[in-house]
Amino acid sequence: MPHPLPPLLPHRVYGTSSSGNCHKVRLALDVLGLPCRWHEVDILKGETRTPEFLAMNPNGQVPVLQIDDHTFLAESNAILCYLADGSSLWPGDRLARAQALRWMFFEQYSHEPAIAVARFIRMFQKQNDDPRLAELTRRGRAALAVMEQHLGRQPFFAAGRFSIADIALFAYTHRADEGGFDLAGYPAVRGWLDRCRAQPGVTEMPAP
Amino acid sequence: MPHPLPPLLPHRVYGTSSSGNCHKVRLALDVLGLPCRWHEVDILKGETRTPEFLAMNPNGQVPVLQIDDHTFLAESNAILCYLADGSSLWPGDRLARAQALRWMFFEQYSHEPAIAVARFIRMFQKQNDDPRLAELTRRGRAALAVMEQHLGRQPFFAAGRFSIADIALFAYTHRADEGGFDLAGYPAVRGWLDRCRAQPGVTEMPAP
Repeated sequence: MPHPLPPLLPHRVYGTSSSGNCHKVRLALDVLGLPCRWHEVDILKGETRTPEFLAMNPNGQVPVLQIDDHTFLAESNAILCYLADGSSLWPGDRLARAQALRWMFFEQYSHEPAIAVARFIRMFQKQNDDPRLAELTRRGRAALAVMEQHLGRQPFFAAGRFSIADIALFAYTHRADEGGFDLAGYPAVRGWLDRCRAQPGVTEMPAP
Repeated sequence: MPHPLPPLLPHRVYGTSSSGNCHKVRLALDVLGLPCRWHEVDILKGETRTPEFLAMNPNGQVPVLQIDDHTFLAESNAILCYLADGSSLWPGDRLARAQALRWMFFEQYSHEPAIAVARFIRMFQKQNDDPRLAELTRRGRAALAVMEQHLGRQPFFAAGRFSIADIALFAYTHRADEGGFDLAGYPAVRGWLDRCRAQPGVTEMPAP
């Protein structure tokens, strides 16, 4: 298990358990063996739009990590970097660190906006005939193809070992079927998912 | 001027000068005083879809930083982290570093997909009546409002000083007018743009 600096108190997380972006934070905490106080936030009830929530994150999104009474950190992948800083989950080597970030930015720009949004439309909004799904499916498959190519050559996304880049991409990929994506055509992705699942602390995301 | 490790050779960048994501890399190199060999890539002529380009970045996007004969780094904000690692442009403090990343992930998730895409539709595709512009305008204004609130309290995005988070957000914000966004209603954003422009090495992005 990687060795982070021990926190004085359990980390306080505001998140939605069935959100992949929030599940990332749960995974990092569990893999690092860090205690956590989880405050469940219901997106569909508008709980990310209250004045209290917007004071923590003006962008109105979960997850949020509370650092101290007046300090909050938003953006799931930035939270991963914060939690993993100094541990083996975020490589110390300059290039390996940047390659991990490369895949985390890929996740937020090319992967999540297609695969997570398709899942949200199907699983949360129950709109299986939404006209946006065709384009989201095309973009999601393109992202999976990029992953497949990389994972055909390397066991993990950066530094040759399990890192926060894998946690970031595992979150929505292991539930891609809920967005209408069939992983049968992506054997390298499926092998990598199995390697991620074998890491101590890695769990499946709860269903919506 | 911040002091990075000196490179043995000029950095080789594959980019499009009128792309904000690429201009970020130009800004970081110039602010850090690093030499560069810039290879201009024409997106509209399909030059990011050739086998040679896809071998550098399977996701088919500029910019790409060449590290050595066989190593390439994609994703503009990951390139910023790589170039700035060890310099004052990316804070060494764990929380300040994570807050810089928070704004860089915000940029790629909530800002660029609205403001840069609206600019692309108007300036490159010349489609001022594109039906997507209404939603892009709404989302872009929401991102600008989040920035306005933050910059009403702090001079820069992270660590109280100019960092790669500012470079990432400067790129498309200082050309937001080309996406149809009027910054008159965002005085704190305009003040911050002026503070960015006052940094040695910061230049305007070339017109398309």
